[in-house]
Amino acid sequence: MKSPSFAARSTLRIAQVAPLSESVPPKLYGGTERVVATLTDELVRQGHDVTLFASGDSRTDATLVAPVPRALRLAKSVDPLALHLLLVEQVAQCADEFDIIHFHVAPLHFSLARRLAIPHVTTLHGRLDLPEIVALYSEFSDLPLISVSDAQRGPLPTQNWIGTVYHGLPNRELQFSAGKGGYLAFLGRISPEKRVDRAIDIAKACGCPLKIAAKVDAADQRYFEQHIHPLLAHPLIDYCGEITEEEKGAFLGGATALLFPIDWPEPFGLVMIESLACGTPVVAIRGGSVPEIIDHGVTGFICDNLDEAVDATRRVHTIDRRVCRRAFERRFTATRMAEEYVQLYRRAADAAVFAD
Amino acid sequence: MKSPSFAARSTLRIAQVAPLSESVPPKLYGGTERVVATLTDELVRQGHDVTLFASGDSRTDATLVAPVPRALRLAKSVDPLALHLLLVEQVAQCADEFDIIHFHVAPLHFSLARRLAIPHVTTLHGRLDLPEIVALYSEFSDLPLISVSDAQRGPLPTQNWIGTVYHGLPNRELQFSAGKGGYLAFLGRISPEKRVDRAIDIAKACGCPLKIAAKVDAADQRYFEQHIHPLLAHPLIDYCGEITEEEKGAFLGGATALLFPIDWPEPFGLVMIESLACGTPVVAIRGGSVPEIIDHGVTGFICDNLDEAVDATRRVHTIDRRVCRRAFERRFTATRMAEEYVQLYRRAADAAVFAD
Repeated sequence: MKSPSFAARSTLRIAQVAPLSESVPPKLYGGTERVVATLTDELVRQGHDVTLFASGDSRTDATLVAPVPRALRLAKSVDPLALHLLLVEQVAQCADEFDIIHFHVAPLHFSLARRLAIPHVTTLHGRLDLPEIVALYSEFSDLPLISVSDAQRGPLPTQNWIGTVYHGLPNRELQFSAGKGGYLAFLGRISPEKRVDRAIDIAKACGCPLKIAAKVDAADQRYFEQHIHPLLAHPLIDYCGEITEEEKGAFLGGATALLFPIDWPEPFGLVMIESLACGTPVVAIRGGSVPEIIDHGVTGFICDNLDEAVDATRRVHTIDRRVCRRAFERRFTATRMAEEYVQLYRRAADAAVFAD
Repeated sequence: MKSPSFAARSTLRIAQVAPLSESVPPKLYGGTERVVATLTDELVRQGHDVTLFASGDSRTDATLVAPVPRALRLAKSVDPLALHLLLVEQVAQCADEFDIIHFHVAPLHFSLARRLAIPHVTTLHGRLDLPEIVALYSEFSDLPLISVSDAQRGPLPTQNWIGTVYHGLPNRELQFSAGKGGYLAFLGRISPEKRVDRAIDIAKACGCPLKIAAKVDAADQRYFEQHIHPLLAHPLIDYCGEITEEEKGAFLGGATALLFPIDWPEPFGLVMIESLACGTPVVAIRGGSVPEIIDHGVTGFICDNLDEAVDATRRVHTIDRRVCRRAFERRFTATRMAEEYVQLYRRAADAAVFAD
């Protein structure tokens, strides 16, 4: 086990273990891989010695170790499980080269992590409200876990949660903008839990144009065709398809408000902080992380139903966009995220020494 | 590690670790679970102390440890991976209660098995000719593996293969029958690699009725509708749908021959030994395990193309059905399978002692 001097040392040897589904950062959609990319580069910038385990087409300031040459989704992998099992074993093989290992591939590594003689933490990126995972997490109640919102922990309150770390964005990736485009924005996936249909209802009720920049997964194609496509013909609705990272700033920055009318326990919701980074307030339906990200009446409105959301959208000009940007700079930058993770790395290492 | 006396002890404490997808034995289709059921009960019959890790709706003469109450496919599980990870961890937790652990869940347990202080073996039940698995198996080239046919090893020749054990059936489950039904039989799944279309072509060329007892997986529904359903209207063809275990004996025993015109590297092919158990010769297209199971000209014919198969089917009355049954009794019973596995358990245990 590590010596007690670990916590005092200023430079840490850190392993980041990313999923192989998308490159780090992802070429298109892929929230987990985007966060790992941001965290990894920021840890390097802060002076740490970072090794990133990720697909070979990743771009990083850290040392890249790639169990596969290309990200699995775009390479149309037929056995992603085999390759993730290989990833986890390769991490274990060189575990003693690190002070801390940070896993983003739960729950694949749980059995192996339990048997590592090296401190480790795991960030859970997904929803946890599935009854079938309870038994597995109960078995691994000792494993040090990090949530991306307090709300995410709800279904599994008795795990060994060592902290919540909100996601962050590179500080200057998105710029403040005046929101003069004269439209509402919806950005993300078109799927039943994201409820773009509600966004359309809100826009129509307010008589305000809505721009929708969203991808449709293969799994959601039927939902899109049956339930959403017929709604897009309305003159107020402008469906732009999927946009690139480079287009996001202009898209969000030009909007009067971001509509986030979700219908699921959103674990984090990166698009909310992207919006705040542009100075654009968020009109959200309550769920999951929303009340932790949005300050009601300050950086947006948290609504309990569609009528409230329509009313909030009409009043959204009362929100000071500069306050939104400042909330981003205070709470959701990469710098803050990396610093909080380093604190938790030190805490996990101390606990490991103590347990030893 | 185990004491050297292990190899000499007559009663072994054996863990069998089955997949959770189907119960053991399976309610419907499920080759792996059927073999595990047969092996487990036969090991108990031979006097061993056996623990079966499997779904709670399994029926066994061994001690059942069930991480889940019901088999996952019929329970429509949404996260089978989480439950299999739990299974593997639960096995590891009580590993020291056993002399040997026999895994049937590759590759999920590879990392954990490598770190077990208890002898273990793994039977691979599936095809291994997928390029994506090569890197994983290369990483785990030390792990003691058992193949279900020599042919199965082809794509991975440098693994630590400790033996091939052909599958077996309970000695008296299927009875010898005279094959007087006046039809050819096809039994199994309707899928591109099983080539029921070839069976239909053979039957039509021979002018002989063909009975097809086969299930159609959801994944193969489109293939069935587009390519197979139109062929079923021919007066010689009788499509019976999926039949039960109880109906198999009469179905196979009444047939003049089983047609097995596969187009893939069949790892084993249980239906071939079911057929032999009934005294029914097999007309097969060469592939995978076929030349290891069928003795050309003695228990059936191994053909390299459709013309040969038509010719072989016309001559299949020259095969002595009693010789087929005797081949089953000599080579493919549960008793023989269990005895061979016990030999390999002892060999794996000796190797573990040696390594220790």
